[in-house]
Amino acid sequence: MSTWLQNAWYVAAWDAEVESAPLARTICGTPMMFYRKLDRTVVALRDACPHRLLPLSMGLREGDAIRCKYHGLKLGPDGVAIEMPMRNDAPNKRICAESFVTHERHRYVWVWIGDREKADPALIPDLWPCSTEGWVFDGDYYHVACDYRLMIDNLMDLTHETHVHSGSIGQPEIMEAPIRTRVDGQDVIVERWIPGIDAPPFWRTALKQPGQVDRWQICRFVMPAAVMIDVGVAPVDAGATLEKHDQGVRGMVVDFMTPETETSHHYFWGMARNFDTSDPSITAQLKRQQGVVFAEDKEILEAQQRALAANPDLKLAAYNIDEGGTRSRHIIARAIRAAEEVTV
Amino acid sequence: MSTWLQNAWYVAAWDAEVESAPLARTICGTPMMFYRKLDRTVVALRDACPHRLLPLSMGLREGDAIRCKYHGLKLGPDGVAIEMPMRNDAPNKRICAESFVTHERHRYVWVWIGDREKADPALIPDLWPCSTEGWVFDGDYYHVACDYRLMIDNLMDLTHETHVHSGSIGQPEIMEAPIRTRVDGQDVIVERWIPGIDAPPFWRTALKQPGQVDRWQICRFVMPAAVMIDVGVAPVDAGATLEKHDQGVRGMVVDFMTPETETSHHYFWGMARNFDTSDPSITAQLKRQQGVVFAEDKEILEAQQRALAANPDLKLAAYNIDEGGTRSRHIIARAIRAAEEVTV
Amino acid sequence: MSTWLQNAWYVAAWDAEVESAPLARTICGTPMMFYRKLDRTVVALRDACPHRLLPLSMGLREGDAIRCKYHGLKLGPDGVAIEMPMRNDAPNKRICAESFVTHERHRYVWVWIGDREKADPALIPDLWPCSTEGWVFDGDYYHVACDYRLMIDNLMDLTHETHVHSGSIGQPEIMEAPIRTRVDGQDVIVERWIPGIDAPPFWRTALKQPGQVDRWQICRFVMPAAVMIDVGVAPVDAGATLEKHDQGVRGMVVDFMTPETETSHHYFWGMARNFDTSDPSITAQLKRQQGVVFAEDKEILEAQQRALAANPDLKLAAYNIDEGGTRSRHIIARAIRAAEEVTV
Repeated sequence: MSTWLQNAWYVAAWDAEVESAPLARTICGTPMMFYRKLDRTVVALRDACPHRLLPLSMGLREGDAIRCKYHGLKLGPDGVAIEMPMRNDAPNKRICAESFVTHERHRYVWVWIGDREKADPALIPDLWPCSTEGWVFDGDYYHVACDYRLMIDNLMDLTHETHVHSGSIGQPEIMEAPIRTRVDGQDVIVERWIPGIDAPPFWRTALKQPGQVDRWQICRFVMPAAVMIDVGVAPVDAGATLEKHDQGVRGMVVDFMTPETETSHHYFWGMARNFDTSDPSITAQLKRQQGVVFAEDKEILEAQQRALAANPDLKLAAYNIDEGGTRSRHIIARAIRAAEEVTV
Repeated sequence: MSTWLQNAWYVAAWDAEVESAPLARTICGTPMMFYRKLDRTVVALRDACPHRLLPLSMGLREGDAIRCKYHGLKLGPDGVAIEMPMRNDAPNKRICAESFVTHERHRYVWVWIGDREKADPALIPDLWPCSTEGWVFDGDYYHVACDYRLMIDNLMDLTHETHVHSGSIGQPEIMEAPIRTRVDGQDVIVERWIPGIDAPPFWRTALKQPGQVDRWQICRFVMPAAVMIDVGVAPVDAGATLEKHDQGVRGMVVDFMTPETETSHHYFWGMARNFDTSDPSITAQLKRQQGVVFAEDKEILEAQQRALAANPDLKLAAYNIDEGGTRSRHIIARAIRAAEEVTV
Repeated sequence: MSTWLQNAWYVAAWDAEVESAPLARTICGTPMMFYRKLDRTVVALRDACPHRLLPLSMGLREGDAIRCKYHGLKLGPDGVAIEMPMRNDAPNKRICAESFVTHERHRYVWVWIGDREKADPALIPDLWPCSTEGWVFDGDYYHVACDYRLMIDNLMDLTHETHVHSGSIGQPEIMEAPIRTRVDGQDVIVERWIPGIDAPPFWRTALKQPGQVDRWQICRFVMPAAVMIDVGVAPVDAGATLEKHDQGVRGMVVDFMTPETETSHHYFWGMARNFDTSDPSITAQLKRQQGVVFAEDKEILEAQQRALAANPDLKLAAYNIDEGGTRSRHIIARAIRAAEEVTV
């Protein structure tokens, strides 16, 4: 039993990461390779030639096909052999590399982990800020040598900002506002409302008006491995509420954690915003800032993973502040168990 | 049950690699060290002092003996103690490092893996081109981090040249000539005859005459871990045949793959030729070229070994072109099983 | 069953290594961190926050407490929580990091491995030359990637000096003097008396007088993991004996080997002397010389550890010269077995 859910969509790559040359990436323990066909749709195949297992990502693209670098077995985008190493041999259609269902949405290439026939694009997590008119979205890819769930814990509890990010985005005053954690179907929501404060410089600039503001931070875990963080400010008299707060300026941090192995993951960080959407310098500034913030998190998370190995007699404890992460882990574990029972 | 045959000779080193200073090399899973006595014969001992296991290869030679660097235990070339750490103590003749039978032939130092009393030099593989009058032979040592059988597969199937060596020795037209695989006792032979073609530049120069040629490539697997590749050209009207082709110019690539561990081996590559035998510049050119070719193979073979580990659910498949490698592996496996049965 | 004794004191660090900033060090398999309180006493805690296991050594000191870098859990020097990540939450006194008993003596910080209530400072090994009036003592810390018992073997048998330290302190003539090994309670003593020789340069300078000397080397193993080596010379007519030899100049090499893992240890080397005690240049010279000597030992000991792994079918042998190490290992093993029986 793995630590991640089967029969689910995971982000394999940013759309712009996949081009005609193969991209090798291990997703949920399985080596895969990705490339675009001439029509720009994305192919995902097991990154091992069905002949002698050489990574197909070392091969050469020919039209929509890939030719293995070792003996030249040529596979179509469905993974099925279309030319044998000896060109005169008739291709054996039973020779094929495992292929995976992919789908592009929200600027990501998604891959289905599980039974092909169950791969329904309707099941892709609704990361709406990545692809909604009036919002602009961009981000980066990072590799982290820790269990993907440690990153979910991290994101569902923003109290760590004070300590981990004391040199960058940490702000002790925020931590004094109470949080509320609730479950909404399979989502877990941790929300914090900070009424009537002076807006910090970034948000003041974004809002383009003086006066006190209400501020919010709402973390939402979305199965199987996403966290969206709704952040922003609105003028104090604009009537913004936790439920509805489009009166001011709003950003959505969108995080997806795709397991690579049990102790490493691919971290897709992005930020959407509904203000200054035509100003690319803000996009660049946000990405640059995230580079600094991420380096602080990576140091912590990878040290935590090493500590788990070095202290096998100790267990993670959960306090009040961890309720968001704990509930998210419970939902993942319950879904895994339910899937196991169906299978048995 | 290991992946290599016991009670067999393996190449431990090129003759010139072994001198009076110890050479450390793990052969078939056993750490060994090799050096020459004053009479130039080669000693092979377990590379661990019988006292406290320090590698003897770190020790100092004294006459035909080796003195351990740690406490000075001095062992004769048979591995038996001749001086104790306290010089006044009488040497205990039961103290000894395991010694191995070696034999020099064909420019190689061979070591017998298995029961000493069965070590018969007559069982050394007949790599005749390495030591036959009228031929000149030289080569190099390479380390490869893959199962030695992956290299045998590689050498017994030259179709890979087109893809792996497209930048060096690959020639698509050769691949169109049919191959024939046959078994001759414990040897496996893959032969290709290419009649009436224009000789490629290297062979044209070697042949020193114009006109069309017949060309051949004959790979022969020889137990327990050698592959000899007979290559060359003869004038089209000279009557050369697959069976007998000394009418033109001929080279023999001689490869020996000595297991180091289950996932690494020592690769002894050499080339013999019966033309321009007194021109050392051709020898140098062939060794230089092999450096380039080998780098291409090493990249593939080590990636293949990593892919075997990363895809434990997948197996190597065998197509027509793999018949040579597959039959070679069968002969190795059958010999291992037969030896096991004798032992039981 | 580990290779080291439980319920014993081990050196964790030199006194000067521990300051107010945390020092991370794994002792006997357990990650620990050490720091000084304002009153200069030393705190030792498991190097894992009881909350999410981040190493506490990454945290920040606040007064006598340590605050975790991840979520800010603040622990007192006894390891008990005094401030929760949400400052308004009442601290839960059941939340605590494991704390270890420490004691400073002989210039070292000692840590008790085992049941806290048994930690009696009277059980600290009596390394008297480190803290006796009329003696001056200093040393260094080294990390060695080998079983701590291999270093005990090394120190309890000085015949290795001839071979390992041939370029530094090795002197063949010493090796000709007979050694005597005896057991004194839980101590093992290897003694060598070299009467009527010319003093080597270092000792000649220390003694400050001409003429022949008696010289001694007395290695004493002290449980659980110390070796003290009494070295020096006395004028030949001064009446010095193996039992009593304060007539000349005397040094005590004090070595403590604290297990880190089964295959690595912390090596605390120091040297005390009763001559030129107010001359710091001699202290500096001895430390510099030990750097050279240690590099020679480290090469041997780490190669020996690798050889143990590479030759699993071979065992360490024990000759006459190994009696000191062998008896020391027996005393350790017997104590471990006795402790196991008490526990069961």
